[in-house]
Amino acid sequence: MGELAPLRESYSGKRVLVTGGLGFIGSGLVRRLVRMGASVTVIDACFPDQGANLFNLKGVLDEVALVVADIGRVDDISAYIVDQDYVFNLAACISHVGSLRDPLRDLERNCVSQLRFLGALTELSRGARVLYTGSRSQYGSPLYTPMDEEHPLRPVDFNGVHKTAVEEYHRILHGLDKLRFTSLRLTNIYGPRHQMHHDGQGFLNWFIRQALAGQELCVYGDGTQKRDFLYVDDAVEAILLAASDPRCEGKVFNLASGFPVSVAEAAAVICEVSGNSYRCVPYPPDAVAVEPGDIHLDGSRLQELLAWRPRVELREGIEKTLYFYRRHGSRYFHEGKARVDLKAGAMG
Amino acid sequence: MGELAPLRESYSGKRVLVTGGLGFIGSGLVRRLVRMGASVTVIDACFPDQGANLFNLKGVLDEVALVVADIGRVDDISAYIVDQDYVFNLAACISHVGSLRDPLRDLERNCVSQLRFLGALTELSRGARVLYTGSRSQYGSPLYTPMDEEHPLRPVDFNGVHKTAVEEYHRILHGLDKLRFTSLRLTNIYGPRHQMHHDGQGFLNWFIRQALAGQELCVYGDGTQKRDFLYVDDAVEAILLAASDPRCEGKVFNLASGFPVSVAEAAAVICEVSGNSYRCVPYPPDAVAVEPGDIHLDGSRLQELLAWRPRVELREGIEKTLYFYRRHGSRYFHEGKARVDLKAGAMG
Repeated sequence: MGELAPLRESYSGKRVLVTGGLGFIGSGLVRRLVRMGASVTVIDACFPDQGANLFNLKGVLDEVALVVADIGRVDDISAYIVDQDYVFNLAACISHVGSLRDPLRDLERNCVSQLRFLGALTELSRGARVLYTGSRSQYGSPLYTPMDEEHPLRPVDFNGVHKTAVEEYHRILHGLDKLRFTSLRLTNIYGPRHQMHHDGQGFLNWFIRQALAGQELCVYGDGTQKRDFLYVDDAVEAILLAASDPRCEGKVFNLASGFPVSVAEAAAVICEVSGNSYRCVPYPPDAVAVEPGDIHLDGSRLQELLAWRPRVELREGIEKTLYFYRRHGSRYFHEGKARVDLKAGAMG
Repeated sequence: MGELAPLRESYSGKRVLVTGGLGFIGSGLVRRLVRMGASVTVIDACFPDQGANLFNLKGVLDEVALVVADIGRVDDISAYIVDQDYVFNLAACISHVGSLRDPLRDLERNCVSQLRFLGALTELSRGARVLYTGSRSQYGSPLYTPMDEEHPLRPVDFNGVHKTAVEEYHRILHGLDKLRFTSLRLTNIYGPRHQMHHDGQGFLNWFIRQALAGQELCVYGDGTQKRDFLYVDDAVEAILLAASDPRCEGKVFNLASGFPVSVAEAAAVICEVSGNSYRCVPYPPDAVAVEPGDIHLDGSRLQELLAWRPRVELREGIEKTLYFYRRHGSRYFHEGKARVDLKAGAMG
């Protein structure tokens, strides 16, 4: 993908911190930021059940400062968060089902760690531009679709509550003039570098894993529930544009493609591209509790403000994703493998 | 106040837990519940900067089980929270300015402790009727007045964020069929048994303290900012009615008088009754940040559902409050005194 000149101007030579920078979207940001000449620091806790993978930064790792630590451990990270121009605050624990099994862990990893981190950040990088990534799960079951930013926040799991609380921390600190924030509530993002060793996040990627394994895809319910899928490179571009645009400061936007498709349609595209088949199965009991029905975010406000549109259509995005994992799947399909890489520093 | 027959029927012989039951509103609930023949357990952390005061339960202390513990210490309290019919979940840390000074403490005392408590409660009193008391501070600065329950939640301090998160915990557990909740977002409540040793909560009570000390009352700003004041006995009755009414289950309501008055008008009533005077002074810096302007909750939804109206008008409520503190002020004006009472168990 070519670089947009205004983006390069915004980030070249700037000090940029990416929390969760070894993860799926975080690593996409880091790779582009490095290419644009930013001075990038990555902080990632590398929780084994989340998306951190050292392989995500293969090729740019020598050009970033990498700190493996929970962002809540402020004594360990304080030297690395000084005088940042931009902070992409993506570090989060994002399992919906997991938050119902262990709500306290979700609270500790999200709210407690974020509150510690933001407290330190406002001391050490006062006035930094901070972009926080929220989630569609903050809205819960739709009262109407597409859901705009005014839709009530009534999540169906604790993770959604905590995502909103952390968004609110940013908003309050913005109001106190201690940082300048933008929050983007993300639709379903898919693509290369997503974790593939459990199905607790990102079911489109999980479909792709099933397809690569030659398995029949399992669609929950009747597959008519709609989702809005956005390819990761498009999401990264929108995030970079929003963080550098003063008109986004202090505001909350949905980030979505604007082209909802049903889960069965998405499965059908994957099957077409990969030569597989899918079938519908009943929801497992713990997934029923967090299944919100159709989710279709209205992302038009941000799209119009930034004059940004996604460039990668679903079929193309799925092809790119399949291509990536056919080459590098071994780096993603087993949790143990990613961990060993990390500990050994071996990038192979 | 006479007992309403339906209330007595709802609570007589029932097992009732009141968290924060040594506090201002909690103790009012406990006193009425004991009079109605409920079997009452009180859990209170007795944080020194909050409202717990053993004197609040003078006269009924022999008839309740009292546990002095943070509700988050589930190992210490689990024996006391078994098989409760009703839970009035009032335990909270409620300083707005304090939450800006120490947001992590506010998070620990509210979200962490509540999440631990609710986890234990759903195991030990599954299906209990739980009434949670939220706050007008959850709404933040009004986009319109009166603010109904659909008004967006955009608090100006961390305490408001955490009050909402805990309300959401209840709602999610209700959705999972683990408890039956009602949340009441309270307007400004005033009256006897409110803490009077610092001005971080309940400015009407603080005015009353200034009046009793013969000081000129200090009204911040020009005094035109409106508030809705509800006398504590009225609040207690509405809370008891709401918790016992199945039509309130799973819902969130404002609890307000419906008669907003300006802060200067309220000060004038106190001065009339006490023979004092007031003057307007500029906001202190840390109060500016959490001053939301006019706050006028629309409490009509709950009032209509319960066919409940407040009985005590502002002037009468202020007279009753002044009368109480003239007799018992020594129990409330010094933090140390309340603590000594508590430790010695001396009720004098």
